[in-house]
Amino acid sequence: MSLIWHDKPVILGGSPILEEPVSIAKPTLPEMKKIQDEFRQIYHSGMVTNSNYVQRFEERAADYLGVKEAVCVSSCTSGLMLVLKALELTGEVIIPSFTFFASGHALLWNNLKPVFVDCLPSTYNLNHNIINEYITPNTSAIMAVHIFGNPVEIESIQRIADDNNLKVIIDSAHAIGTRYRGRLVGSFGDAEVFCLSPTKVLTAVEGGIVTTNNQELARRLRIGRDYGNPGNYDCEFPGLSARMEEFNALIGLKGLEDIEEIVAKRIRLVNIYQKNICQIPGVLFQQIDAGNTSSYKDLGIIINKDEFGLDRDKLAYALDIEGIATKKYFYPPLHQQRLYSRYQQYPLTATEYVSNNILCLPLYSHMEEKIVQDICHAIWRIYSYREEIAGISIQ
Amino acid sequence: MSLIWHDKPVILGGSPILEEPVSIAKPTLPEMKKIQDEFRQIYHSGMVTNSNYVQRFEERAADYLGVKEAVCVSSCTSGLMLVLKALELTGEVIIPSFTFFASGHALLWNNLKPVFVDCLPSTYNLNHNIINEYITPNTSAIMAVHIFGNPVEIESIQRIADDNNLKVIIDSAHAIGTRYRGRLVGSFGDAEVFCLSPTKVLTAVEGGIVTTNNQELARRLRIGRDYGNPGNYDCEFPGLSARMEEFNALIGLKGLEDIEEIVAKRIRLVNIYQKNICQIPGVLFQQIDAGNTSSYKDLGIIINKDEFGLDRDKLAYALDIEGIATKKYFYPPLHQQRLYSRYQQYPLTATEYVSNNILCLPLYSHMEEKIVQDICHAIWRIYSYREEIAGISIQ
Repeated sequence: MSLIWHDKPVILGGSPILEEPVSIAKPTLPEMKKIQDEFRQIYHSGMVTNSNYVQRFEERAADYLGVKEAVCVSSCTSGLMLVLKALELTGEVIIPSFTFFASGHALLWNNLKPVFVDCLPSTYNLNHNIINEYITPNTSAIMAVHIFGNPVEIESIQRIADDNNLKVIIDSAHAIGTRYRGRLVGSFGDAEVFCLSPTKVLTAVEGGIVTTNNQELARRLRIGRDYGNPGNYDCEFPGLSARMEEFNALIGLKGLEDIEEIVAKRIRLVNIYQKNICQIPGVLFQQIDAGNTSSYKDLGIIINKDEFGLDRDKLAYALDIEGIATKKYFYPPLHQQRLYSRYQQYPLTATEYVSNNILCLPLYSHMEEKIVQDICHAIWRIYSYREEIAGISIQ
Repeated sequence: MSLIWHDKPVILGGSPILEEPVSIAKPTLPEMKKIQDEFRQIYHSGMVTNSNYVQRFEERAADYLGVKEAVCVSSCTSGLMLVLKALELTGEVIIPSFTFFASGHALLWNNLKPVFVDCLPSTYNLNHNIINEYITPNTSAIMAVHIFGNPVEIESIQRIADDNNLKVIIDSAHAIGTRYRGRLVGSFGDAEVFCLSPTKVLTAVEGGIVTTNNQELARRLRIGRDYGNPGNYDCEFPGLSARMEEFNALIGLKGLEDIEEIVAKRIRLVNIYQKNICQIPGVLFQQIDAGNTSSYKDLGIIINKDEFGLDRDKLAYALDIEGIATKKYFYPPLHQQRLYSRYQQYPLTATEYVSNNILCLPLYSHMEEKIVQDICHAIWRIYSYREEIAGISIQ
């Protein structure tokens, strides 16, 4: 598909390639027949929340991820909030600005000050090479994020943390099924927190899982999701009402059976994207370092306007007219949002570059390869007609 | 049942009255056949969270409660946290010490200082007569609680709030179906927050509903449950991930159809309790003021040791041996818990009296009347043998 396409894009009066509009993401739930009998049992038992299925899901997740403890919670955000609370962190936490705002919100709810560190323009992940410069006597932790499922440079970060007596919390919202140097993420840092909301690689409809090798932390998280009550009705800390329901655990448990297959499928879809459009000048894919794999919760490409001939916004607009949904994600980055701008201390050049030029393309686990090819075709023909399109103003 | 029973309690070697152990509470879910088709539709649609059913549930709940806006959230605690955050409260909040710790936790997560006010020993609710004494220039709100579903003296509290320019937030966790002076609670104060966890009078398995006549507050809550993002990816305030799932909304929606019947049933069950054991000296029922009705989320009685001949703990112990679960609730009160003791400023005599002597008896919506009668029988025979039992030490 390195040829120039001669059919016109829809924005210039051409016909759509795709018969139906394509969403940016869609949930992939286990087949109904795999859950319906057990759903019925749960419903009739009256044990509908935080019971046997949650425990089974925790055991299987811990087993799969190779970590001592997995604690189910109501959402990834609840998990992050509870980890920070349970660890009794204070002061400053180093965090990328290029992340989803839930990472930041968890800090704010805990009265922790975010200290934004730039990302690497290639991997979009926290630039571990410069973290040292941001550490002060008030720093208590580093919150790293596996952006879009691409594993952050964990060993370097852990070394810096160890040298400075800092905790490491990993926002692994995107990263179930991701491998860092061949090993599944989930057992790194002091805790990792996964998201199980509908569009994630593994979903429980809603929910989150915190994984840790620290059994005392796991104990505190288990009471923390139930208000912080250790059982004697005298809370250890102000927890949340963040239990996982049995039904959600059942969905997660069944989904987990297929996780390896799903991640392999997503990698295959991304490879099709890559093979088809990587020759277009100015289309840059997220770099996954050698030895690592990404779960590809999202596929974010950078559009270099000078080479591509159109900026990211114009491409997104032209794709939208083709019926292809895309997402400018994360845009704006945290430090350019009203809640967080006051915390910026240092230049965040790479973050702004990535955020201003990134575009996430449609990707979901049960997506047909043909759809990916059609999207690539659409991008090619938009590129071919870039000069004409450049003259069109975005309404 | 005013006669003295001559059969011995189990604790003295008698036979159990009840064939099976009785739980303190059990969830009453809508019949499976009422939800299964729509559940299947939701599941297959892929629209599994915060969509059509949530909207329908919100409309029906607002309609039923006679309030402009109902906003579904993931839990009552999330709802309370978001209301306080969305209202941008600061400083001190007046709150009963005799309440569930979630009321207090919502303040702590918002850096608000609880100022504990005593309760009335008859209704267990916030003593509205003394609130004025606790107001300082730092007070921003009163958080009132309908304890066990018994409506708090709202008009007096609202008058005090108006006179002092304070917000009123009502923790209505227990109170769906409760009537204050003939009118359902839900439209009082600046916001009310209901709980839909499994053992509540109306359940959605997990969840909460915030009701308010303030449409701007409702807007902020709707974005608050989705991180505070108004749609432009630039959060107005740090929200939560606290959406309600469609499946939960479906359960709540179906349950709501039966709410009046369920509340009537609970009142009937409490009346049976009352009729059968109110003549026992030292057994005091929660007072529901004339013109009000309680949803009776819980039935809490006070045991006056001097009159009953046994203290609350001994009665609970003897009932446990009969296979009858009870709950010392709320015990200890907030100001005697480690997280909250530092906030006590004034004596809380009635709170300590109620908390030290309260015992919640089994009550759930599908409970058979015969079970209530059997429990009353058990309490009577324990009372009859009070002197012998008093000599037994609790293991």
